[in-house]
Order: sequence, then C-alpha cells, then structure tokens
Amino acid sequence: VSRRDPAPAIYFLSDYGTADEFVGVVHAVLHRRAPGVPVIDLSHRIPPYDVAAGSAMLARCAPDLGAGVVLAVVDPGVGTDRRAVAVRVGGGGTDPAVPTAARPTWLVGPDNGLLAEAVAVLGGATGAIELGPVRPAPPGGPGPQRVAGRGPTFDGRDVLAPAAAHLALGGDPHLLGAPVDPLALVTEPAGRSLPEVRLLSTPGGTEVVTTVTAVDRFGNVQLALATRILDEVGLRPGGTAEVAVVHGPGRAVPVRRVVAFAELAEGELGLLIDSSGWPALVFDRASAAQALGLG
Amino acid sequence: VSRRDPAPAIYFLSDYGTADEFVGVVHAVLHRRAPGVPVIDLSHRIPPYDVAAGSAMLARCAPDLGAGVVLAVVDPGVGTDRRAVAVRVGGGGTDPAVPTAARPTWLVGPDNGLLAEAVAVLGGATGAIELGPVRPAPPGGPGPQRVAGRGPTFDGRDVLAPAAAHLALGGDPHLLGAPVDPLALVTEPAGRSLPEVRLLSTPGGTEVVTTVTAVDRFGNVQLALATRILDEVGLRPGGTAEVAVVHGPGRAVPVRRVVAFAELAEGELGLLIDSSGWPALVFDRASAAQALGLG
Amino acid sequence: VSRRDPAPAIYFLSDYGTADEFVGVVHAVLHRRAPGVPVIDLSHRIPPYDVAAGSAMLARCAPDLGAGVVLAVVDPGVGTDRRAVAVRVGGGGTDPAVPTAARPTWLVGPDNGLLAEAVAVLGGATGAIELGPVRPAPPGGPGPQRVAGRGPTFDGRDVLAPAAAHLALGGDPHLLGAPVDPLALVTEPAGRSLPEVRLLSTPGGTEVVTTVTAVDRFGNVQLALATRILDEVGLRPGGTAEVAVVHGPGRAVPVRRVVAFAELAEGELGLLIDSSGWPALVFDRASAAQALGLG
Repeated sequence: VSRRDPAPAIYFLSDYGTADEFVGVVHAVLHRRAPGVPVIDLSHRIPPYDVAAGSAMLARCAPDLGAGVVLAVVDPGVGTDRRAVAVRVGGGGTDPAVPTAARPTWLVGPDNGLLAEAVAVLGGATGAIELGPVRPAPPGGPGPQRVAGRGPTFDGRDVLAPAAAHLALGGDPHLLGAPVDPLALVTEPAGRSLPEVRLLSTPGGTEVVTTVTAVDRFGNVQLALATRILDEVGLRPGGTAEVAVVHGPGRAVPVRRVVAFAELAEGELGLLIDSSGWPALVFDRASAAQALGLG
Repeated sequence: VSRRDPAPAIYFLSDYGTADEFVGVVHAVLHRRAPGVPVIDLSHRIPPYDVAAGSAMLARCAPDLGAGVVLAVVDPGVGTDRRAVAVRVGGGGTDPAVPTAARPTWLVGPDNGLLAEAVAVLGGATGAIELGPVRPAPPGGPGPQRVAGRGPTFDGRDVLAPAAAHLALGGDPHLLGAPVDPLALVTEPAGRSLPEVRLLSTPGGTEVVTTVTAVDRFGNVQLALATRILDEVGLRPGGTAEVAVVHGPGRAVPVRRVVAFAELAEGELGLLIDSSGWPALVFDRASAAQALGLG
Repeated sequence: VSRRDPAPAIYFLSDYGTADEFVGVVHAVLHRRAPGVPVIDLSHRIPPYDVAAGSAMLARCAPDLGAGVVLAVVDPGVGTDRRAVAVRVGGGGTDPAVPTAARPTWLVGPDNGLLAEAVAVLGGATGAIELGPVRPAPPGGPGPQRVAGRGPTFDGRDVLAPAAAHLALGGDPHLLGAPVDPLALVTEPAGRSLPEVRLLSTPGGTEVVTTVTAVDRFGNVQLALATRILDEVGLRPGGTAEVAVVHGPGRAVPVRRVVAFAELAEGELGLLIDSSGWPALVFDRASAAQALGLG
C-alpha cells in the first residue's frame, strides 16, 4: 500500500455550532497542549443535544479517519455524574486494505453512546479509561483542569480536549484516570425517536420498515438499512418499489433504485447506495426530504 | 519582493455546507495523503449545485492564493460521464508584482465551468489531465479510489481530493490520467439566470445593463461591470445615477458613486469599487440587497 | 507547570460570516506571509457590525489563548479615518498560573473598542502602534498593501492580516507604523443597547439590574454581573429569586441558582456560573433565551 500515513491528527466533532466561541476555544486548548498536531473538524453542527445524530455521523466518518484521536462532544449530561471516557480501539476495522496503524487509536468523549457506533466501525473497544476527577488550577499536566471561578459546564475545554491532546502526543493513558471495562460502556444513545420509512411493493413482495439516519444538506435521506436487504427483497438497480413515511403526511410514493443521481427524471424519487454505503432516498438536484415531509 | 512564499497549500471550495461531515471527511483524506500540507477553506456555503456562484467566488479569491492546488467541488453531475479534471495554470496572472511561483499551479474539480473564471485570472490553462477511471480498493496510490460497498456520489472524497493531494506533493500528473486539450474544457457553467440591474440617468446619459455576480453577508450587491465602463458613462466618485432591478419589484433608485461606506447617509444607496475590484451597490451598515429586493 | 507552550498562533475573530470568501482569503494572506503559523478561528459569526458582541466574545476567549497574535475584525468604519492598531499586552493576566510568555502578545484590529475588553483580560496595554498608511503594490514587506484596482473596503485582507502575520513572526512592530499612546485607544464600542434583565425577590431583598452579554447556541443567556453580586444579594446555590426582562413581553419568572444544567426540572429556569465565569440564565436542554423572549 503506497498511502503515506501521517503523524496523528485529532478529529473533532461536536454540537457546539459555529456562532459561539466554543469550537475556537477548544482548538486553542488543543494547540497549546499538542502543538503541531493537526485538528480536523468533522462537523460542529450536530443538532444541540442530539447524541444519536452525532453517533451516526461519527460512524459515517470513521472509515476515512487516519491515525490519531477522535474528540467528540455532544453532551447533554455535562456537569452530572455521567462519565467522560477515552476508548481505545485497535481491531480490524471494516476495510481490510487499511492497516491498523493508519486508524484512530483513541476516541474521547462523554460515555453516553456518542462514541459507540464509531468504536464498532473501528474494530471494537480494546480498553477504556474513565477520565479522572477534575483538578483545580494550576493548569498543565496531562489531565483535566478547571480554572477557578469558571463553571463546570464546558468539559470539552476542561476535560476532553486536554485528554485528547495528551493521547495524541502518545502520553500514558493511565495518567488520565482509572481503567474501566469496555463492556460497561454505554452502547446506545438515550432514546430519540427517528422517523420511520416503509418500503412497499418491492419486487419480492416483502415490506421493509426502517429508520432515517440522516438528512444531508442536499435533502438526501439516509436509511438504516443494510444494502443486502435490498437484494433480499429483489430491489436491484433499475427495480422499483414504493416508499411511505410512517406517521408522515403523504401517501406511498414510487421509487426507483439507481446508481447515480442523474439517472432520475425531474421529480422522480430514487433509492441509491450513498457515499457511506447506505441506501438513501434522493432526487436529482432537489431535496427528497422536503418532498417527503422529513427534516 | 520580500514576501515569503510558502510551501504549497490546498485551497478548498465547495457547496458541501458545514452541517454534514463532507468537508471534514475531505480534510481527513487530504491529511492522510498529503500530511503537512495546509488546507485552507475558502467557503463551503456555495448554494447547492450553483456552479456559477462557485465559479465567481473562485475567481474573486484567485488573486490572493499562493502556491499549491485549488480543489473545487460544485458538482451536480457527479456520477454521470462529466469529466473530472486537473487544469494546470502558469501564465502571467493579473498582478505582475506576484511572481508566478507564488501562485497556484493546478486547479482540480469537475469539468463543468466551475474552474474556468479562476483559470483565466491565473493566466489561462497551459495543460489539463482527465482524472482517470476510479480504481477499486486497495486504496493508496496517487489516484482515485473507491472503497467497496460505497456509492459513487462523493467524488470530492474519492477522486478529487486524492488528485489534489498528489499534485500538492509535486507528484507526476500523468499518473492521474490522460492529458486533454485545455481548449476543450467547459468554459461556462450551464445556464443560470442571474438577476439583472439597469444603471440609468448616468452623467453621460448612457444606460447600462449588467448582472449581479454576488450578494455578500452584508447585503452588498456585486455587479459584473468593468470599472472602466463607469468612467465611460461619466460616473466618477461623487457622481450620481439611478438603479433599477430588471423584473424587480421596485422603481429606479438614486445612487451615488463613493469610495467608502461611511460617505453614505443613512438610507442612501452607493456604488463603490469593492475589495475585489468590481462595482457594488451598497448601503452604510445595512443591506442593499434587501432594499433592492435581491437575494 | 508542565504545559508545553507552543510556537505562536494567530487567533482570528470576525463578523465576516462563513458564506462568503472573506475568511478564506484572510487565511490565504496569513499563510502566504506567515507560513507555518497556525491560524485558529474563534468565530466569524459575530453579528454584522456588532462591535460590542465581538468585544465580549474576545474577552471570553482571552484566558484560553496561547502565545501569538489576536486578529479581530468587526469594522463598520472601514474606509473612514478610524485607526487600525496593534496593541501590545504583557501584563499579569487573570490567571496567575499561566506564565506571561504563554499568552498573546499583540492584538490587531480596528481601534473602535473591539479589542478593549480582551486587552484588559490580558493584563492591559503596554504599547500600541497605529498601522501606517496603506502602500500601493508591489506587495510584500511587513505592512499593509493594496493591489491596484481594488477598493479600500477589506482592511482585514489588506492591512490587518499582513500586520498580524508580521508580528506573529516576531517582526519589528515599528515597521508597521508609529507608536500611539495606549491610553488614547478607544475603550468602549459605540453604543449598542443591550437587553436588560432585572433580578427580583432575591433572598437578601435587593433588586439587581444587569445587561445580557451573549446568547449562545443553546439559548443560554449570559449576564454582565460579577459573581460576587449574587453572593451579596444572598443568591447562593439552591437559593431562588425572580427574573424579568426589562421592556420584555413577559412577567417575572422564578429562577433557582444551580451548579449544573441537570439539577433543573423540565421548564425550570436556572441561574448558574457558566464556563466563562459569568452568571447565565439557563434551562436544562432547552433555550432560556426563547422562553424569556430574548434573541
């Protein structure tokens, strides 16, 4: 494999948005503690508190991430006794062509299910550390810090970024806290009801119900449906079926499985395997989500 | 010239938006393939599919870009047989004070007109490569790749970023695909009807019709009008005329040519040469676009 | 102190937004003039022209910034005779645990009050330079430049970024312009009327009127109220009072002082010391600003 694999990076995802200073301040902390380590922003526009959406996005990104540390913050429980953790991965990953050394080694975030899907994509957890109690100033050292007079509501800055920087530099994880059993980590975000979509009139006659994982900027609607299910119900490229949004306003809409957006006529709904490898409902140059009354 | 000119950078523009993970994933690919090469985001909020807006923005940026590679993705035809190309530039540029070595050498993107205006600003194309057929995994190597099971809808990640990284490292362009005649490149984005503006009652009496190139965050309305035309119709700083939006809701509005925003009274419409060197309709600390019913 | 302190960075804040190319072009200029110096974006979504909001955000960021230069641009007076300045700081700072060498040394921006609060947080001004008259091309050299044919409306690109790059490289500040008396700098942004909030029925019986400094993405409402005032009126954690927005639509609402969001019941308004050390009105996982009819 001729791919050059780089020095580690920190891959950063959050629900901080871009209107406030939160993302910039975390970058400042990372730069001060791990100068020279590139920080790559995945997205900071996860809807506020939406752990499930963050988890799904992180899983979509995971196959493309290189060596280093994932820092993820969607943390409605900040300030409670929910744990902050660093999870070590190092398994096979989904793409056997990518050597293990070229993948992230640690994921750092709240233990609320946010990391779980990406951990699975990256081969599963081989260890975990509970990030230790926050120490007061003086700042410095590997672990969390809290400057006197500031509230405990910004663990991204005070706890998670210092830990990510420490791990990105190859620091000893045991300086960050005590080991915890990876099997005891939260595996699923607390309940969020995802919109459901029903696939009807498939060539094989089988009806399939699935959930919507994501709606992107272009209005493409990603479904939580293994591609092989499409084969099992006979819906191959060129084949047709119908789609209905459960509890949605509209009736069943014809859909055709295609490979590229441009195969679709104007106003025709398509189902294609998207760039993450999941089936998605799409229009050509228009929003399927809007047409279906979703997000 | 005492300007220090740097190692190459990759200058990245797209219509990916910032709510999804697309920009972050492209950064991850660039970092893995060209570690240490800075990636500078120009903007990712080109309106979806709006090749003309992307082309105009890229042209506005071009005079300020340094050595390296431009990566531009506004690509409604992804997945069709539209070509992906790398275009080599190396001519004189518009600013003779900037040595050629300090300018971008390659522009990478879909061959749909997106690159054309910037290519012209950077001195014209001196060569082009059609980015070769996408190879399946194993990943690595200079060119495009597609991981098994993922759809062909994200050429920014799979085709264009790998090519940009390869060129930024000084790699052999012929490893990316076959040469194509630069004269055969698409020179204009497929039709988008830009709003038209009419300039009336000029000092010289001549009427001028032009189009709107861009509306910025502050509501300034940039016009596709060479500055010398203003001189030809006698509209020099201090002079006045009227402006009407063609097919717009309102009537002709008085306008005064100024040099700085602050010369304008509250509610007074101005025409100034903007920071890109184009005439723009402006208010002082208010949105001209809103007042004129544009954008 | 074991914190590694890095090579200098440039910390960049503006009201340029992210839809246009302005931020990207400034990054390009910084990269060309100070290659290898990291540029950290604090935020570019300060409301257009809102110097007071920019000033407050910069002050909130200041304690977390490392060595280097702050570049701040919220500049409604661009093109007028308002000064552009570089302000040197080097005093004690608010956090005695952070050595002076690990703090920003210069702040660069318009002299309109934007820098004043951050200058104070960073220990006060010990010197200032008025950025000299803009020279025409040829570009290069330490100071401002203007390419022929472009208007004087983008000092971020033409004046402030070149100065920030020069200072970040340790260049001689006197090459940028003449010294000015730091005591003559503008200390307060020109008037913006901030929403006012009244704190009633405090345990101590005293009524307090304060202003809203910021509303963040989560709807948390930061107040310009020293924490010790809360102690003085007897409002300690667990204590209750009432809140009313002056000139607001609603009536006084009960509020309870808490330490973490999660102590609050659904729909219960809390007052907590936020991550910047200021009191803020909050809900748990909902927008206090929306409930109170603010921003």
